[in-house]
Amino acid sequence: MREIAIIESIKKIVGKPGAGVKLGIGDDTAVLEWSKDEYLLFSSDMIVENTHFRLPSDRYERIGWKAAAVNISDIAAMGGVPKYITVSLGIPKNFQDVSLKALYRGIKKITAKFGVTIVGGDLNRSEKLVIDVAIIGNIKKRALVTRSGAKEGDRVFITGPVRDGKKCHLSFLPRVKEARYLTGKYRINSMIDVSDGIAPDLWRICRASGLGASLSESLLSLAGSKNINDSLYYGESFELVFTLPVKEAASLEKDVKMRTAPYKFFPIGMIVAQKYGVVMADNKGVVSPVMFKGYEHL
Amino acid sequence: MREIAIIESIKKIVGKPGAGVKLGIGDDTAVLEWSKDEYLLFSSDMIVENTHFRLPSDRYERIGWKAAAVNISDIAAMGGVPKYITVSLGIPKNFQDVSLKALYRGIKKITAKFGVTIVGGDLNRSEKLVIDVAIIGNIKKRALVTRSGAKEGDRVFITGPVRDGKKCHLSFLPRVKEARYLTGKYRINSMIDVSDGIAPDLWRICRASGLGASLSESLLSLAGSKNINDSLYYGESFELVFTLPVKEAASLEKDVKMRTAPYKFFPIGMIVAQKYGVVMADNKGVVSPVMFKGYEHL
Repeated sequence: MREIAIIESIKKIVGKPGAGVKLGIGDDTAVLEWSKDEYLLFSSDMIVENTHFRLPSDRYERIGWKAAAVNISDIAAMGGVPKYITVSLGIPKNFQDVSLKALYRGIKKITAKFGVTIVGGDLNRSEKLVIDVAIIGNIKKRALVTRSGAKEGDRVFITGPVRDGKKCHLSFLPRVKEARYLTGKYRINSMIDVSDGIAPDLWRICRASGLGASLSESLLSLAGSKNINDSLYYGESFELVFTLPVKEAASLEKDVKMRTAPYKFFPIGMIVAQKYGVVMADNKGVVSPVMFKGYEHL
Repeated sequence: MREIAIIESIKKIVGKPGAGVKLGIGDDTAVLEWSKDEYLLFSSDMIVENTHFRLPSDRYERIGWKAAAVNISDIAAMGGVPKYITVSLGIPKNFQDVSLKALYRGIKKITAKFGVTIVGGDLNRSEKLVIDVAIIGNIKKRALVTRSGAKEGDRVFITGPVRDGKKCHLSFLPRVKEARYLTGKYRINSMIDVSDGIAPDLWRICRASGLGASLSESLLSLAGSKNINDSLYYGESFELVFTLPVKEAASLEKDVKMRTAPYKFFPIGMIVAQKYGVVMADNKGVVSPVMFKGYEHL
């Protein structure tokens, strides 16, 4: 896939990160040393007209919501607390003030919901509408979860019913609270937010961890998947996929069942050795490979 | 001017920044409480094809340089130390890998020069090339300089020869070292980087400080200005304009003259009461108003 090759060549040019960088390019956010017991999380995500949303059919307030939400979701995927954003805008020549205000109302609505403050930004002329949000969060060092910590035998879960990301990509709620609950109560080994579909994002965990995964079609169905292919390959549901040891998974499932957990979590598979790649067992037990594909960014 | 009205209406939607935000929207960077004796500086700046650079005439390495340099310059304008950036890219369909690498080499070149690490980013498809860089820096609390601290009677200086920003906008060197020298040795009351021309950027200091300023055509000429109009209104020289009390200015001028200062600094005017607005005295002593105009972003 072209994107992976490009990211590899960028990494080569960027070089090894210096002191102070716990994690650089390659996870949902950068992780930076900042104080004795906390990391600083730092990330940016751009959304572009005709790529991530359509005009005039999509509402500006929803577009603003999404621009901030994808970034808040990146902080959630590390188990962190989102704090501050900047908003860089490229706006077309005849863009109406009323549209710009609607866009900002959407940003304000979701940031207020998560206690995030808009602290700056930049306004520019561009041919198509472009919104880039950068976000800062923080996290207790012991609560950090990355893509690379999965262990063989881990169970794979998702934070919400498995949905086709096409349908909720402008209205989803980042799973900040769910992630903090999970990292506070269980030993979560790895986590990622589903921005490109369960298949490519689970592949990212597996690549980063040097492992494979086996998904179960029946578990995916139990978790709400109506069309397995759409669930696997249509991204932007922004649920979190995470892995944890079997024992921890058992107590999580019990907590969900007894409703002592304040949220629902759904098992969808398990982590296996790297040689298996990512596979799915269908309802008849037939195992077939799950491709790393999904949304093509480039 | 449309941009000012828009920023005001955005500020209204954004609302009052919460605890932890020393400065939100309206200066070169946001200033955030982070540790006992340091602030965190946070900012983002976007550059867009056909607005900030032209293809294929401008070289990709220079475009990458500029994308990072404008952000490093924002940190310089506060007196801070630039630390980490993320790079969000929107790239056209047929964008060549070799161009992308050149772009990144330019970003790497300038970030390496300033000890800045590239820690993340985002790649997207867009119709025109768009680069948004977000930056984090830090600063000792006592070293912070903002736009709003100018005092009546302050002398106005610039960090380098007055140039027409049209000619150096892809190759300028952010004045990080100069700013740190200044804030370490003198009492600097206010500072801004010249991104839109001396006139609009000095106006921004005056507005934020509730004051006016008087520029001197002869001082601007002595400082290297070949065409006063171009110096005032063509931005992107990214020199710093700063103000300091008369006594401090005298010792700065002496240090420059005796070459005990490691850099050159050029006086260009003084801060006056708000009622005068921003004016310029020409070589015959005739005073006329300097307009807030310059590069129109929208």
